Parts: sequence; structure tokens; C-alpha cells
Amino acid sequence: MNAVTFELKKECSRTKARRGQLKTPHGVIETPVFMPVGTAATIKAMRPEEVKESGACIILSNTYHLYLRPGHEIVREAGGLHKFMNWDRAILTDSGGYQVFSLGDLRKITEEGVTFRSHIDGSTHIFTPEKSIEVQNALGSDIIMAFDECAPYPADKAYVKQSMERTARWLARCKKAHRNTEEQSLFGIMQGGMYPDLRRQSAEEIVEMDLPGYAVGGLSVGEPKELMYEVMDHCLDCLPNNKPRYLMGVGSPDCLLEGVERGIDMFDCVLPTRIARNGMAMTSHGRVSIKNAKYERDFNALDPECSCYTCRNYSRAYLRHLFKANEILSSMLLSNHNLHFLVNMMGKIRNAIEEDRFLEYKKEFYLKYGKF
Amino acid sequence: MNAVTFELKKECSRTKARRGQLKTPHGVIETPVFMPVGTAATIKAMRPEEVKESGACIILSNTYHLYLRPGHEIVREAGGLHKFMNWDRAILTDSGGYQVFSLGDLRKITEEGVTFRSHIDGSTHIFTPEKSIEVQNALGSDIIMAFDECAPYPADKAYVKQSMERTARWLARCKKAHRNTEEQSLFGIMQGGMYPDLRRQSAEEIVEMDLPGYAVGGLSVGEPKELMYEVMDHCLDCLPNNKPRYLMGVGSPDCLLEGVERGIDMFDCVLPTRIARNGMAMTSHGRVSIKNAKYERDFNALDPECSCYTCRNYSRAYLRHLFKANEILSSMLLSNHNLHFLVNMMGKIRNAIEEDRFLEYKKEFYLKYGKF
Repeated sequence: MNAVTFELKKECSRTKARRGQLKTPHGVIETPVFMPVGTAATIKAMRPEEVKESGACIILSNTYHLYLRPGHEIVREAGGLHKFMNWDRAILTDSGGYQVFSLGDLRKITEEGVTFRSHIDGSTHIFTPEKSIEVQNALGSDIIMAFDECAPYPADKAYVKQSMERTARWLARCKKAHRNTEEQSLFGIMQGGMYPDLRRQSAEEIVEMDLPGYAVGGLSVGEPKELMYEVMDHCLDCLPNNKPRYLMGVGSPDCLLEGVERGIDMFDCVLPTRIARNGMAMTSHGRVSIKNAKYERDFNALDPECSCYTCRNYSRAYLRHLFKANEILSSMLLSNHNLHFLVNMMGKIRNAIEEDRFLEYKKEFYLKYGKF
Repeated sequence: MNAVTFELKKECSRTKARRGQLKTPHGVIETPVFMPVGTAATIKAMRPEEVKESGACIILSNTYHLYLRPGHEIVREAGGLHKFMNWDRAILTDSGGYQVFSLGDLRKITEEGVTFRSHIDGSTHIFTPEKSIEVQNALGSDIIMAFDECAPYPADKAYVKQSMERTARWLARCKKAHRNTEEQSLFGIMQGGMYPDLRRQSAEEIVEMDLPGYAVGGLSVGEPKELMYEVMDHCLDCLPNNKPRYLMGVGSPDCLLEGVERGIDMFDCVLPTRIARNGMAMTSHGRVSIKNAKYERDFNALDPECSCYTCRNYSRAYLRHLFKANEILSSMLLSNHNLHFLVNMMGKIRNAIEEDRFLEYKKEFYLKYGKF
């Protein structure tokens, strides 16, 4: 029995959009779902209770960051990541693969794993599939991710093929190294760059491992959105219908809609909290840059259609003032709103799928939200 | 009838400590009281609901800062400072005097007022007693402060005398300029530096104005603490018993105890939130610098005797991790704790006065808290 199981509840009649349920040791998650990112064991500028209030049932945290600081052994001693950070709902951890590959000159890849230098203090470390799983087992997240290589974009086919095949070999090592199958479930990651035949090969290799879930990696890495959607279509055709599909690192409203339409069940992205710290809000009428002079005397709510704490209690004029005065409350209030916005958008998407009017919802959303 | 009234409830039999009640248009405040500082219309890194949860019934906000940004007319249009910042309890605003005098080379004093350059954009402004009151009337705070000059330390007697006498003339102009006596009460400020006879003269001049409250200004400006306490004794002997006495800008635990013992009813200080952002916590066993390596694997609460949100839900190891990772949640959680600590300390002081055991409380506190 896997720690995490998936049940498909309903499929859209005109698209590949689907409603499902993901059962985890820390609660049931309705899908499609957006997972806020808490890189360093905190969703930036938010208390866990606020994150819950937004409706979020699962968050993502980063293995690379927690391994370096505070160290996974400390998190283990604290009783695991849930207890350490005061979050009793589900957690997914990535494998650290994406982060160490992003280090560029600071890392070196071999069949064994990746040697890298810490971005914090320059110290040298090695991540192998076994090490990544060991760290994730120490963290105790409900869903752990395979250690993969996310090939850059653009990359030539020979490189992508070699990298993708190594990712498949690494997945077998991850599965073997996983020590806590009763409480944590390992998801595999499909790679293959922008090459449909490599995506198919990757899918076949990882699906053979019979895992409780599969992720689409290597997208949203710099390619045009049209290409991303095209590749996504290929990817999803190769994945089994009865397992959850997770599109990694994607979370803008348009990408959520396009991903859901193609059959994605899970998304994660730093977007809502990161843009909040830069004074940007997502609202039902499009993006708002709160520092704009036109909000100086605007005493309306940030999003008049929103019911979040920020919109119930503060005006655009006040939010603009906080941002310009560089006040921490600015990041707190905008993060709260943006997370509420995206999590609630996913709720509306789920309702629309249940009522078989996903395409209508998508059209209405684009009409109101405007250009991206 | 004044907007703010004071009632003396009980006096300590062995010290000058006193229990009172301050009635304001935004609630009743039990004294002695500590007022958290929300310089730019926000208690840094805290939601107003958290500030309330700490027990705080009145906060201080800064006229100089709000005049420059967002501008007092915007706050007026928003419906006043309470509504603008979502705080429905009492607010005291300072006069901006202390801030403009602190600008050093950027300001020039005449009998009319103070010409100064903004620390934000270098633009030139003038604060007069009339202007300060106009701004505070626009903000709508429950208690507004007279525009005074806070003489530096050290300063020669001739300068302090001249400055103190001008402060008294400015007070008369403030009283005359005050337009909203039904909803806002003007407090006078005693000056006179470290000179007992000047303090007496200042007290006589301001008490003659028959105001609803008086502040002791010009202390904690760099003088040794022993001298501050000595001068404070003189100051309080000159003030009427039936009016609240406010010691401006003071709020470390030892100063609160020494101030209460001498008959102070109100305090304000940025200390709890400022040191929180630097990773410092006040606990019942003394100060804790959370970045200290000894807390790396310390899974106990920050202050085992504290019942605040932070101490109920997080460990020292987690707080240390957040601080070292430069996470906003670090400032949020430590600010919450420090404010809770000081506000609750004042509650214990009030209980001790009611039970006529203030000196015993003070002794116990020092024994546990240790050196300052």
C-alpha cells in the first residue's frame, strides 16, 4: 500500500481536464491543486495558519535548501518537517536536482550524482539519488521526488537523451533507496526536453517503475509558452490515467488553466509570494502593481471580488503606502492575497470541471483577467 | 469635557507606583501601560489583530513619518489613521518634534518653528506648532502631543533654558491651534534637560495650561541611566497627581520598572519590534540572541513561561533557522513574542501594584531576568 493514493473522480467531456483526490497521511487533497512553495520551511511572509486559511492543503519545500540549512538531521531530530515548521497538512519535497543543476559552474555531473558548491558558504557536497532520498526520508514529507536532471533549454538532442536515460537509471536507485514507503510516496519525473520521442521513451521508462505519481519536469525552463503547451500534450498522452500528474514549477494563472486543460493534477510555483514581495498582486481583473501612483488615493479593496483578509481590511492606498515605506506588512498582506487568489482559482476550476463547464470558466477568466 | 480622561485607582504604599485608567474615544486603557510603536502606520511585521492579541490597547504612531509619507491629507481622506491602518483601539501620535530635531544638519530652528529637509527625498518643509497640530488633527489620533524641542545631551544650561521656554510658548500655540478637542486630547511635554530647576519651571509653565495629560520629554537621550532616574524623580514631583504622566521613548524592562516606581503611567518604545528584527528576544530568563549556535538543536520554546503564539508553536531551533535564512517569518514571530512579553510584563506590574507588592515583583523580575 502506498502512503499516497490517487482517485480520479471526474473527467471533462470536451478537454482532458480532470477532478481527482489525493489521499496522504496528512489529509485529502482535492485536485487539480496548486501547491505554495515554502523553500526554507516557511511560506515567505506568512504564518502557517494563514496558508491554511487560503485553503491550501499541500505545500512544497526544497530539499537542497533544507539540506544546507538548517540540515536535514536537525529537521529529523525536530520530529520532521511538519512539526519543525508547524504545518500539519501535506508536504511535497523536491529532490534538490533542479537546484543543484541551476548552480551552473558550481556543479559537476557524473553517473554517481552531482558534486556542487553551496550557494551559502561555498562548501563542497555531493547529491546522489541515494542521498536525495535519505534527506527526504529525514524530512518526512508525504510526497518525495526522484533525483533527476532537468536539462536546460535549448539543449541538443544527444545531450537530452543521455541525460534523460541517466534520470531513468537514477529513478531506479531512488526507488531502491527509499526507506519509508509506509509514510512517504516517491513520484517519478519525466524528462526529455522538447523532443516528443524522448518524452515518450522517458514516460515508458518511469511508468515501468509503477510509482504512485508522475511529474513532468523540464518545462517552463525558458522555452516559449506555445512550445511548452505542445510538449505538455505529448507528455500527458504518455502517462497513465489513474495516477496523479504533477507539472513542476508552473503556477501563473494562464499556465494553470492550460495545464489543467491538458490533464495536469498538481502545480507548484513561487510566483504568488515572490511577486507579492515586489508589490504585484493578482486580482480578478488582472495584475495590479501597487506602487502605481493611481492608487495613492484609492480607498477600495485590492480586489473587490476577493474575500481574503487583506481585501476585507485594507485599501489600495494603504497597501501602496506600506510598499513604498518598505514595510514588512506589505509583503505579508500581498502574499496573503496572492496565495488566496491562486488557491481559490483552483477551487473554481475544480467546480467548473465537476459541472463540466471548464472551457466556459477558462474563457470568462481570460476575458476578465486580460492579457498575461 | 476632554476626549481623554484619567482616573487614579490605587497608589503603592511604599513607592510612587500607581494604577490608573485612561478613558479614550477608542477604549479604556489600564495604566501603567506600554505603547508599541507603529511609526509608518504599522507595527512592523505584525498584523493589527496580533498586536491586539498581545493585549496592547494603545499604540503610538509618528507624525513626521506620516506627514511625509503617505501624507496626512491622504490619511484624513481615508477616514483617519484608525481606519487607514485597521486599528480600532486608541492611538497616540507624537508631534514630529523629536524627529525633526534629530535631523541635525538638515534642520533649522526659529521661534516660528523648524525648517527641515525630508530624509526621504530631501524636499524642504516647515513644522510649526500649528502645523504639527493640523497634521495630528488630520490623523485623528486620540492623544496628540505638543510640538516641543527635545534638547540634546549634553547641552549647556543657557541653551536648555531658552529651548524649554520656547517649548512652553509653542505649547500655548498648540493649544490654540487644536481644532478637534471633542475627539482628541492634547498632552503637554515637560523639557529642561538634566537641570532640576529648569524641570520645575517647565512643569509650572505647562501645568498652568491645564491639559488632560503631561509627558516627560528629553530623557533617554544619551545620559547615564542613573542620571535619568534622578532627573525623573524631580520631574514627577512637579507634576499633578490626577493627570497621566507619559515617559517618552522609553521601554526596556528595567526602565519600565524604574519608571513605574517613580510614578510614570505611560511608556512607548520601538525596542521590542526593533530588536526582534535583529534576532533578539526578551524572555522571562533574560535576553536571547536567537542566532547563537547553542540553539541549533534546541527544540524548546523560546520562553517556556510564555503563552504567546510563537512560544506555543515553534522551537528555538526553528526560530534560529528562520533568522539565519533571513526569512520574514523570523521578524514576524520574534516581534510577536517581544511585544507579548512587554505588554504582559505591564499586566503583571499592574497586578502587583493592586496587590501592593510592586517592590517584590520588581525584585523577582530582576533576579530571573539578570543583568541589562
